Amino acid sequence: MTVFDDLESEVRSYCRNWPVVFDTAQGARLNDVDGRSYLDFFAGAGALNYGHNPPQLKEPLLEYLRRDGVTHGLDMYTVAKGEFLHTFEELVLRPRGLDYKVQFPGPTGANTVESALKLARKITGRESVINFTNAFHGMTLGALSVTGNSMKRGGAGIPLVHATPMPFDNYFDGTVPDFLWLDRLLGDAGSGLNEPAAVIVETVQGEGGINPARVEWLQGLADLCHRHEILLIVDDVQMGVGRTGPFFSFEIAGIQPDIVCLSKSISGYGLPMALTLIKPEYDQWGPGEHNGTFRGNNLAFVTAAAALREFWSDDVMERSTLAKGERIHDTLEELAGTARDGTLVPKGRGLARGLCFAQPGLAAKTCAAAFERGLLMETAGPSDEVMKIMPPLTITDAELEEGLTVVRESVGATLEGAAA
Amino acid sequence: MTVFDDLESEVRSYCRNWPVVFDTAQGARLNDVDGRSYLDFFAGAGALNYGHNPPQLKEPLLEYLRRDGVTHGLDMYTVAKGEFLHTFEELVLRPRGLDYKVQFPGPTGANTVESALKLARKITGRESVINFTNAFHGMTLGALSVTGNSMKRGGAGIPLVHATPMPFDNYFDGTVPDFLWLDRLLGDAGSGLNEPAAVIVETVQGEGGINPARVEWLQGLADLCHRHEILLIVDDVQMGVGRTGPFFSFEIAGIQPDIVCLSKSISGYGLPMALTLIKPEYDQWGPGEHNGTFRGNNLAFVTAAAALREFWSDDVMERSTLAKGERIHDTLEELAGTARDGTLVPKGRGLARGLCFAQPGLAAKTCAAAFERGLLMETAGPSDEVMKIMPPLTITDAELEEGLTVVRESVGATLEGAAA
Amino acid sequence: MTVFDDLESEVRSYCRNWPVVFDTAQGARLNDVDGRSYLDFFAGAGALNYGHNPPQLKEPLLEYLRRDGVTHGLDMYTVAKGEFLHTFEELVLRPRGLDYKVQFPGPTGANTVESALKLARKITGRESVINFTNAFHGMTLGALSVTGNSMKRGGAGIPLVHATPMPFDNYFDGTVPDFLWLDRLLGDAGSGLNEPAAVIVETVQGEGGINPARVEWLQGLADLCHRHEILLIVDDVQMGVGRTGPFFSFEIAGIQPDIVCLSKSISGYGLPMALTLIKPEYDQWGPGEHNGTFRGNNLAFVTAAAALREFWSDDVMERSTLAKGERIHDTLEELAGTARDGTLVPKGRGLARGLCFAQPGLAAKTCAAAFERGLLMETAGPSDEVMKIMPPLTITDAELEEGLTVVRESVGATLEGAAA
Amino acid sequence: MTVFDDLESEVRSYCRNWPVVFDTAQGARLNDVDGRSYLDFFAGAGALNYGHNPPQLKEPLLEYLRRDGVTHGLDMYTVAKGEFLHTFEELVLRPRGLDYKVQFPGPTGANTVESALKLARKITGRESVINFTNAFHGMTLGALSVTGNSMKRGGAGIPLVHATPMPFDNYFDGTVPDFLWLDRLLGDAGSGLNEPAAVIVETVQGEGGINPARVEWLQGLADLCHRHEILLIVDDVQMGVGRTGPFFSFEIAGIQPDIVCLSKSISGYGLPMALTLIKPEYDQWGPGEHNGTFRGNNLAFVTAAAALREFWSDDVMERSTLAKGERIHDTLEELAGTARDGTLVPKGRGLARGLCFAQPGLAAKTCAAAFERGLLMETAGPSDEVMKIMPPLTITDAELEEGLTVVRESVGATLEGAAA
Repeated sequence: MTVFDDLESEVRSYCRNWPVVFDTAQGARLNDVDGRSYLDFFAGAGALNYGHNPPQLKEPLLEYLRRDGVTHGLDMYTVAKGEFLHTFEELVLRPRGLDYKVQFPGPTGANTVESALKLARKITGRESVINFTNAFHGMTLGALSVTGNSMKRGGAGIPLVHATPMPFDNYFDGTVPDFLWLDRLLGDAGSGLNEPAAVIVETVQGEGGINPARVEWLQGLADLCHRHEILLIVDDVQMGVGRTGPFFSFEIAGIQPDIVCLSKSISGYGLPMALTLIKPEYDQWGPGEHNGTFRGNNLAFVTAAAALREFWSDDVMERSTLAKGERIHDTLEELAGTARDGTLVPKGRGLARGLCFAQPGLAAKTCAAAFERGLLMETAGPSDEVMKIMPPLTITDAELEEGLTVVRESVGATLEGAAA
Repeated sequence: MTVFDDLESEVRSYCRNWPVVFDTAQGARLNDVDGRSYLDFFAGAGALNYGHNPPQLKEPLLEYLRRDGVTHGLDMYTVAKGEFLHTFEELVLRPRGLDYKVQFPGPTGANTVESALKLARKITGRESVINFTNAFHGMTLGALSVTGNSMKRGGAGIPLVHATPMPFDNYFDGTVPDFLWLDRLLGDAGSGLNEPAAVIVETVQGEGGINPARVEWLQGLADLCHRHEILLIVDDVQMGVGRTGPFFSFEIAGIQPDIVCLSKSISGYGLPMALTLIKPEYDQWGPGEHNGTFRGNNLAFVTAAAALREFWSDDVMERSTLAKGERIHDTLEELAGTARDGTLVPKGRGLARGLCFAQPGLAAKTCAAAFERGLLMETAGPSDEVMKIMPPLTITDAELEEGLTVVRESVGATLEGAAA
Repeated sequence: MTVFDDLESEVRSYCRNWPVVFDTAQGARLNDVDGRSYLDFFAGAGALNYGHNPPQLKEPLLEYLRRDGVTHGLDMYTVAKGEFLHTFEELVLRPRGLDYKVQFPGPTGANTVESALKLARKITGRESVINFTNAFHGMTLGALSVTGNSMKRGGAGIPLVHATPMPFDNYFDGTVPDFLWLDRLLGDAGSGLNEPAAVIVETVQGEGGINPARVEWLQGLADLCHRHEILLIVDDVQMGVGRTGPFFSFEIAGIQPDIVCLSKSISGYGLPMALTLIKPEYDQWGPGEHNGTFRGNNLAFVTAAAALREFWSDDVMERSTLAKGERIHDTLEELAGTARDGTLVPKGRGLARGLCFAQPGLAAKTCAAAFERGLLMETAGPSDEVMKIMPPLTITDAELEEGLTVVRESVGATLEGAAA
Repeated sequence: MTVFDDLESEVRSYCRNWPVVFDTAQGARLNDVDGRSYLDFFAGAGALNYGHNPPQLKEPLLEYLRRDGVTHGLDMYTVAKGEFLHTFEELVLRPRGLDYKVQFPGPTGANTVESALKLARKITGRESVINFTNAFHGMTLGALSVTGNSMKRGGAGIPLVHATPMPFDNYFDGTVPDFLWLDRLLGDAGSGLNEPAAVIVETVQGEGGINPARVEWLQGLADLCHRHEILLIVDDVQMGVGRTGPFFSFEIAGIQPDIVCLSKSISGYGLPMALTLIKPEYDQWGPGEHNGTFRGNNLAFVTAAAALREFWSDDVMERSTLAKGERIHDTLEELAGTARDGTLVPKGRGLARGLCFAQPGLAAKTCAAAFERGLLMETAGPSDEVMKIMPPLTITDAELEEGLTVVRESVGATLEGAAA
């Protein structure tokens, strides 16, 4: 590991908690150079919904490479891109009654968010954007300006402006009517709120602490945007592609955002890729007005198309995700029941699950205890107070149980340690 | 092609000039679905310096995939990342006397530029940045704010602030002493220029029209930055990795920038990857203060390490690039000689070459004529007045001659058409 | 009036509602060129608390002019300035246990607000400021950025940033706990709120619609600022100098703001003057770091000192103001009682009073009806829904009754018209 | 003086160099409380062009006060305002062929500049403004953002954006063609300069160091603005009202700015007042879109009208100003002739004159020496390197000679001291 200490910037982070050198990985397991195997309740921060190197995608990828398919294509037309678009339309958009235009921005979550914000501002001629408490949308300046975390914001080195945070669902534990504040500000010509171009929202906040917005809150938000002629952007970078059950996390609310941001698991193989979906009437880009050198990552198109065919031709994956999510939830409830009232709170939706610790530091301690036991989990939330459980959607029931056993042991060890 | 028309956003651009569907590619050639082959003087906008699917990299990539090496690793330690770092240190940094720390930002040029700007602001506690006329640094808000193109800037939808453009080398055709304006502003307490955190510069502006900065200008800039305690950021995203001859484009000036941005060809296989190189004393990031889901694209690390071993163990590539560059230059000079004085001006360095047309529209017409003849070239410059020649560095001499013949014919046809 | 139509900019406003040419004025009365007299329930928008041309101030002013006292002194030491400072200390600061340092910014409310914001940012090193819904602080860029009115904000022509509006007292009619939102945002490291340098607040919002903040709300705000180490700026430009009873409007809450803005009635004769009062530990200005050519308006110092001696040597003025305020309040309550429930709502504190009309346009109609009857009143509030009653504090009881009679008639006429 | 030390903010500045208490003043003389008389080569920083308490204005002012003319009128129509407008039109606008609309902003230079910038942005829909090196336009945020001085800019506490400084005339001592940089940036779609709404310029920079722009430079600037459809704002706050000879300082260039800012000496008596003059086609304000409580300072209107009648009914004042200016210039040239080449450089136009000292600190020393000899002068320039001579325009020839004698002695004493 000397090479990392010697050469890599201090910015590195995950490796500080998991100080081993990983080598290979399949499905829900990673293996380090010493031959130790780790069960994965992390899934590449949501980029590996189908697990590591899924064989159903690996073969098409190898075949494409072997036959020298175009690898890097910018926005040139390619066979691989055409097949992805066709498949995406057939298996994702059409069955859901969606008619989005598809933009390929630079292949990261931040890039799709940047493109969405730029487009919303262009369409409306307004500069301001509404974001939510504890939102995370990325680390480039535009995306960071709508992100909540103060440490990350501080890294910008300039004041982040043009965004105003509003309370996410349940920010006041249900004691305040939904949108009381935002609706009032928008309706008051003297409120001092700059008229927003758009609202950007995650249906379940991942980095923010696994906070799911209720269906009626999402519907209320869509309705509010419609009433005030504000665009609704759903950042489905982490919660899309089935993480919460359905392909798009907003499907349960029956809403149709004006712009949708996808990335992370869309390629299915951990390959960089991002999409910005735009309602046709808002596809007001000029040619090349937003671009990026790696927007045509054709290897990702190949695996993305294969993943759609493999996992989204029917509803098996969705049902399985919901069932596994319930299984985790039950375990977390059970753990919460063993602890003092309110000190452990289960959270989440689908396979985005969390356990919130009232006492600071215990979530991190639990993750460390789990790592010692061969399980990868990270924390989330503004004070890292949430233990985050995000296994691959393709995890087997046996692996899930194995992991939950480690979770139980780790939580137990942590609580014992805290009590001692 | 219907699928693209139906589904893809209006933002798409290259495909508008090259309305065919590409399928496979090797070296300096792409093939479309109708079996037609195209010679490539474009090289993925600089991301394919070693050509399409180079066999020396393909085999390690296939092998890594076959054996289920970790594909997506964020900033976890992996064997592939360690090998890349080790190789980069041994073949790139150490021989050049450079001791940069290596940051892996999100895998695009814009992301490395964003990280560089954030870090420079953090280090200095200043907000402002100096950029240059006709600079291109990327499309996310931070990167866009230091980019010159007014169409692209307009896409931001907010006023782009915190950057002040200064004249790039030769902006006044040598009639004004270098840095007269910038040096004066910095030395005048009443100038009204916000004290800058950093200067960001390309040694050869690619998108800006293939404008090379002279060695003495780069040295003067480094000296000015040093005198005024401003950080020097070289954006080597397009011109690095050998495009102008040496690995880093700034080597010819003997300068050591404080921060270097690399992307595009660093992976060698067109795979998304980016590096931010930071002088050790400026590696002041906190853990996770800048990150990105795809910052651990291990497939790219595998091909990047292989590319370094294959192409940068000796100086064969560098000498070959310079020689091929001269060959193109001679051809362009010859073409210029046949035209009315000053109507065709050759530009460039190494294998970043351009031919500037005095008459608007002729560069685009020439590129169109070349496409009809099976050659891919794009335009550059604020008014698309430059025909840009950027073949893979690995192009064979025969392919280069073939391409230059098409260039000659295409220029000839265009000039004839213009005269008619 | 042709000269105004021909020469004056379209920006003029009051003259549009009161299309007569005024000539002379004494106390609570103005006279136009046609000899008509108008009773003044407007008081120069709060700049004429002692009425027009008060004789007690006029004589010292004439005397100072006659003897060629220095008129314009910037921040040179002058006898007039020294006497003002001495008097201000003796009659205002010391009796109230306040030890503010006194800054003389440019002689307008906007200038003192600008100086306060600059100083708060300098002291804290933070850029952001918290303001309140329906706040009004001035029309220069800094002051406008913390002002609520959307029409006025729109006039800036640039996005107004670095300020975040919070709900003023009673914004939700008491249904939401005070500071729920602000306190939560400040305590949440993931809220996305930029850490504020200061909170700026009016104790009674004048332009915003005569909205008084309750004593306990002001105390809660001071406490919140203290807990979060944020500076508290009270903009007492309109409500200071006795408008609500005590000299400083915040006295009733027993709080000591870190910075206080005074202007409007401080000179006592309608002469331009402004003060920024600064807690000694925060007087961190460098010499000349904020200035203004007219910051030494010595005529204003003369009348200001005379006014303090005349009106603030005892508590007669304060008690009289409170009594007159009650008198108005009773009348407004009586009017409200005659109307349909909730359609007329009395508001205010001291001699800053308002009557809120549920039906849009009726407040303006009532003011027009009053003008026809020889009474000057203006509207306030985001939709001009409030009839604003702000007579000179020195108005006689007889004049007050006369004016209230006109108010009764005008409201009656308006309601009748609306019902018809 | 204890009261000032005890109570006044550290921001005070002039009093630090002139630590006496002034009491009365007439014409070009001030008197302190100890009976000492000072000759005034400072003129209230340009606000006292007609000297202190000019008797021709004093009598109308006293009369207006005596008869209780309206003092404070906001933008209500008053007799005093009507007379000012009428007189301004008759004696200033019409004879010069100007048809400006007149706006009364808040009564300070900063306020007129703020209104001008807001209006220019509103008209054009653009945010950016071009200012010049060493410009001074005021201390509120909008005005400060176009001001050069780094100490003053630093006081803002936020990054000042939306303005780009360009080289003022002679910034490179004539070695670079006028507007080379600005013209090139505006004509280059890739320059990265945000398209400006306006250019704001002083014809002679006062605070910046008494830098006069040549007639042909001003004409070139007007022409450039016209060609690029940018509004031209002349800030004539200090140089207007005859300081350089003609009423408007830009008259010598024969240009007609789109917007003109006036303040300082417009009232003639040191009373706060400001005007924004707007070409009729650009008077696009909505009613009340920019305002200010003290915009109707009727005492200032009375003296302003009297001043126009007294001093601007013929060209006597203008010719006298030019003659006196020449007299000062001759003295400064003579002084320069006695010093080593280039160490003393006379500068200026009309009665805005300066002597630039090559050696830092000597200008301040000379002003201190003059103060000891009973003469008030201040320094200017980014490093306070210029001794600034700005007497009242009404100074008598004898007083002028007396002052110049002190100047000669003071410069002599300083140079001797420096040589020692």
